[in-house]
This record gives sequence, structure tokens and C-alpha cells, in this order.
Amino acid sequence: MSADAMTSDYRARRDRVRTALTRLEEPAEAVVITDLVNVRYLTGFTGSNGAVLIWAADGSADRIGTDGRYLTQVAEQAGDLEAVIARDCLTELAMHAHRAGARAIGFEADSVTVAEHRGLVGRLEGQDGPPAELVGCRALVQELRKVKDAAEIELLRRACGIGDRGLAAIIDRGVIRAGATEREVARALEWEMYALGADDIAFETIVAAGANSAIPHHRPTDAVLADGDFVKIDFGAVVEGYHSDMTRTYVLSRAADWQREIYELVATAAAAGRAALHPGADLRGVDAAARSVIADAGYGEHYVHGLGHGVGLEIHEAPGIGSLATGTLPCGAAVTVEPGVYLPGRGGVRIEDTLVVTDDAPDLLTATDKTFTVI
Amino acid sequence: MSADAMTSDYRARRDRVRTALTRLEEPAEAVVITDLVNVRYLTGFTGSNGAVLIWAADGSADRIGTDGRYLTQVAEQAGDLEAVIARDCLTELAMHAHRAGARAIGFEADSVTVAEHRGLVGRLEGQDGPPAELVGCRALVQELRKVKDAAEIELLRRACGIGDRGLAAIIDRGVIRAGATEREVARALEWEMYALGADDIAFETIVAAGANSAIPHHRPTDAVLADGDFVKIDFGAVVEGYHSDMTRTYVLSRAADWQREIYELVATAAAAGRAALHPGADLRGVDAAARSVIADAGYGEHYVHGLGHGVGLEIHEAPGIGSLATGTLPCGAAVTVEPGVYLPGRGGVRIEDTLVVTDDAPDLLTATDKTFTVI
Repeated sequence: MSADAMTSDYRARRDRVRTALTRLEEPAEAVVITDLVNVRYLTGFTGSNGAVLIWAADGSADRIGTDGRYLTQVAEQAGDLEAVIARDCLTELAMHAHRAGARAIGFEADSVTVAEHRGLVGRLEGQDGPPAELVGCRALVQELRKVKDAAEIELLRRACGIGDRGLAAIIDRGVIRAGATEREVARALEWEMYALGADDIAFETIVAAGANSAIPHHRPTDAVLADGDFVKIDFGAVVEGYHSDMTRTYVLSRAADWQREIYELVATAAAAGRAALHPGADLRGVDAAARSVIADAGYGEHYVHGLGHGVGLEIHEAPGIGSLATGTLPCGAAVTVEPGVYLPGRGGVRIEDTLVVTDDAPDLLTATDKTFTVI
Repeated sequence: MSADAMTSDYRARRDRVRTALTRLEEPAEAVVITDLVNVRYLTGFTGSNGAVLIWAADGSADRIGTDGRYLTQVAEQAGDLEAVIARDCLTELAMHAHRAGARAIGFEADSVTVAEHRGLVGRLEGQDGPPAELVGCRALVQELRKVKDAAEIELLRRACGIGDRGLAAIIDRGVIRAGATEREVARALEWEMYALGADDIAFETIVAAGANSAIPHHRPTDAVLADGDFVKIDFGAVVEGYHSDMTRTYVLSRAADWQREIYELVATAAAAGRAALHPGADLRGVDAAARSVIADAGYGEHYVHGLGHGVGLEIHEAPGIGSLATGTLPCGAAVTVEPGVYLPGRGGVRIEDTLVVTDDAPDLLTATDKTFTVI
């Protein structure tokens, strides 16, 4: 892939918002985006206070808002946008839009708080000129973020690669061994990912040994790994804001038949889930493809969560893949596939990959081997 | 301090919310707290989805809400509270309160989004029985969090101690030297803090060398430290959710007179700011105590931010200490004092400590020496 293709095209992303604005049930001439992840997606700006004003008609009138602490940073990261410097970016950008002639101004109803909304209404009422109407939008940008562009996929690939290499490194060094604590394994893996260039870890690393592996979201403790344990490791790295997500489950020293059995079952379910990732696939259908494998084997009650979720600038984002999901999978979506079977008091297995949906077979970003492994 | 005093008394914190509820202008019989930091403060629960219902009259009817992923965790962290398991904790807890007889139900207007509020109104309208009124509250818990209890101060002290020892360690190892990059210094400091037991770093570490030190919020780059540079380091650790915050500025190898001059000026301003930390002190007065020192020396235009901020479960929380602040400083507040002088193109100095306001002299949690130092 060329270096050019790696550069995030923020202007193109804002153009997609413009198109989305014209398709709203209640039309808006402009929208103020305040969700900071969406602001980053649309501008590259990563400060802790920011917003972006996007016009339906004319990109040259778009503005970014932030406060005085970020004067330098906003110029570096979003120098293509004229900046409005203010603490209350939402209000200032909405007032700016109103002064520039907008009468219907969109806002993110799933980001703006009740208090912020009241404050904004009060300020707009105090303005001269015809009144402005505020139009609440939901998932406006989140919907666009479902489909990853080439630059995003490249960053996801880099993040997943760090996860792969980090896990391989701690296995090579013998970190995952009887006598180590869950916490030691988690910390070693995180350090390894930092050393490999991760900007951050994607979420609190899960290392769950023995009976703890039967807890889907177990936080690492000082529990000591023992021979014969399942060791479930769910973790990820962040590269330029993009998250990787992978789970592998190993057995320590010697495996029992029941462990091999549920591992192979989960592996089969995971393969079925991955095979169901096609553009246009019904999200519930993808979930069912994996779930039916586990249910048919009589373990349905021990698989207590959805099959997967979108991953990108957030570790959990649209689309969710589960039994209550609605909608279909778009081409270019980056999602996890992560079935599991959890036997309380005994142990559990989860196998999770991150993949990108393509017109051909899905693009597997997490490359770590997942054949049954005793270490 | 005894081990008992270190244990967070969540019930006592919820009792303070009860008292606050009875003092609202618009009374509420119960409130649903949804801000996750406030939920942690009031219950100890750290999951990514949670809420707590607090009754004005009767603590035994309080409930915690979270979803099925956190069944084990909520029992471990908040086992004293009966749990309501649901994805939409706000709605479920509000409906629970309504069924239990509440007619005026508080919510955090500064946390609940416009979309969540609309959804909640719709669900409550569909309920049997007399209608419920939703009462928007602002800063209800944030106001209580201003005053730290003994367990919180102990955690802040541990976080600040890790910061002190981390910085000392990289200085001892000669990490801060001509030829190193800003990024290398930042990463080394962060690793050191993790090794010392930090759960996380408090915010993106700032290491700013030479002219970059004149940028108040500079993000570390591959810029190389050179002899004669100011090196400004602003960083912190997190321990059980509590943040430390400290800035030190050094000169590499040899100092010029102008460097010594602005350093001493900032040090004098910082001392004046610290000396102004008394219970009941006007927040603007505290800011002015430090600012006037810098302004009187003719550098007022080069000191572009407030004097400090509260620090605790968030890196920036109430009270803010600045020229536009309102209110007074309570006894038990944990705050930073961090004046700076920034000379564009040349370099800047900031000296920042974290302190707890007491009836005597403030309790200095950041112990690192701050006399003018050439390293």
C-alpha cells in the first residue's frame, strides 16, 4: 500500500457527513459534532476539548473548535480547518453557524447532555435574528465509522500485529507458566506491546486462569497459574487511536479431554462465525451461524454473550453482532468474532479474532495461531 | 494511618448524597447517578456500564445497576448493594424507583444525554401509576468529591509518591540528557511508574524541550534534547483511580541568566500560590496571589492559564483555581498549584505540585525538589 493511501482523508470523511445531513428526516443546514471520538475521526484532532462544525452545503465554511490550551496542537493536527477558540465549543460553533445564516442546526443527541442542551438553547434565544432550531441527530458519525477506509484498516492491522507479536514474545520467554500470577502475565504482555510501539493498551488486559477462565470478563488477580489450567488471554493494543482485540486460550502442561472437547467446539463455532462475514449479511444471522454450533452441542446456556462487535477508534463500536442485533454487515466493517463456552467452577474458552469484511473472504487481522495448544 | 482508615467508606459517601438531595431547590425522593466516575466514587464499582440509585430517605433501598458482563465484578466491588441487572441502567433504575413510589426522580443533567433523557421520558410515560417527574441535577456528586476523605488522600499520596520516585529514577539513570528525544524521556518515565505499581498513567506525559517548553500543552515528539535547553516534564500516575499531577522544569548542562530569572520568578509565584491555600480562601484570590507575582515582574502576558485544578478520580475536577473561578476552597480539597511563564520561541517554565488543603499548612503530596537544577 502506498504511503498516500495511509494518510487519513479527513475532508472525505466530512464530505460523507455532508451527504448524511441531506438525508436526515428533519433537515439541518449544519451540524456540530461534539463526541470527541467523532471529532478525531473527522479532523484528526485529539485534544480533550473540541468540536467540529460541518455544513451540508459548503465544506469551506467548516470550523473546528477548541480552547486556548490546544492552539498549537489544533494547527498541527487539523490545520486545514479554521479554528474557533473557546471553552464551550458546542455553543460557540452553534452560535457561529447561526450568525452565518443556519436556521436548523444539528447536534449529537447521543453526546450532548441535558445541561449542555439547555445552556445552548438559552444562548441561541439570546441571539439577534431569526430563531434557530436545534435538530437532535443519533449515530450520525458512528454510522459512517462502521465502514473503515484504507488508512483505518492499515492502523488496525498495525495494532493487531503488535498484539500478535506481543503474545508471541511472552510465550517465547516462558511467561505463561505454572507459578506465574494472572497479573504478572497481563503486565508482561502490556509492556511487550508498549515496547513494540503501541500508543496504549486497548482495554484492561484479561488473563484468567483455571476456574477464573469461566468468568467472561475476569480482571487479572494474584491467582497463580497451575498445570492443567485453561489460561484465557483477551487483550489489545492501540495505534494512533485504533484498537486491536484478540483472545487466545491455552492449556498449561497437560490437557484433559473435556478441555480439548470444548476448545474444538469453540474453534468450530468461531470458524463458522468468520465464514458468515459477508457484505449484506444479517447481523443476527452471523451470530446464529456460530451460536448454533455451540447450542447444537448442548452448550448453549454456557455461551452468554454476543458473537462480536465493531472495532476501530473505540474498542466497542457499531456494528454489534448478537442475537438482538438489527441490520446488516457492510463491506469494510472491522469486527470481532469471539464465541466462548464457560463452565462455572471448571474453566472456559474464548477464541477471538478481528477481521475486516470484504467482497471476498474476510481479511483476518489477528494472525496468531489458534489450533489447540498446550504450553 | 490505620488500615481501617484506608478503606473507602462508600456508604458514608452515599449518605452525603442523601443529605444533598434534601437541599435541592427542586426536591427529589431519589436520584440515579450515571456518571461512571461518580458511580465509582459512591460504590467502588469500576465496570464500563453502571449506575446507582440513591434514596433521600432510606439507604437500604439503594441499588446498583450494571449488565450481565459484570455480575461477578459488581458482587466483588459493591457487594453491599443489591444489583439490578440491565443494559440500560438509567432507565431500569428510574423505573425501579418509580415502582417503589418515587414521584420526583433526580438525574445528572451534566451526564445524561438528550437522547437518553428522551428515552427515559418515554419509558416512564408508559408506566402504570401516577406520573414521575424528572429532576435535573448538576454537579451533585462532583460538589461532594471536592472534599477528599482519608482513604482518598492516602491514594493520592501513593500516586504522587510513584511520580516522585519515577522521576528520580530516570534522572538517576541519566535518561534526561542531550541526545535523547522527548518521546524517549516520556516513555521511560511512564515505564518507571508502571514498574513502581501505577495502575495507569494519569494523562499523556508532557516532555517539552527547548523552544517546545514554551508550549503549555506540548505532546512529546522526536525532538532531541540539547545542552542549554529547558526540559519541562508534566506527568502523573494513577493508583486505584486516583491521579497524581506534577511538573518540574530543568535545564540541561548549562543555564543562561534569563532561564534562571524566569525559573525563580515562577518558583516565587508557585510558593505564593501554595501559601494562599487556606480553607475558605476565595478561588480567584488564590489565583491572584501567584499571578500578581508574575504580572508585577512584567511577564503577565506569558502566563496564559489558570493556577490549578482539583485532582482525584479525574485529573481535572472541581475546584478550578483561575481568574474566572467562583467560590471558595474547602478544607480537604486536593488541588494543583502550577504557574508558568512561556516565552515563545525561547522556552518556558512550569512548576506544579499537588496539595491537600488543611486547617494548617497545605499537605504537599508531590515531594520532588524544585530548586533550580541543571542536570
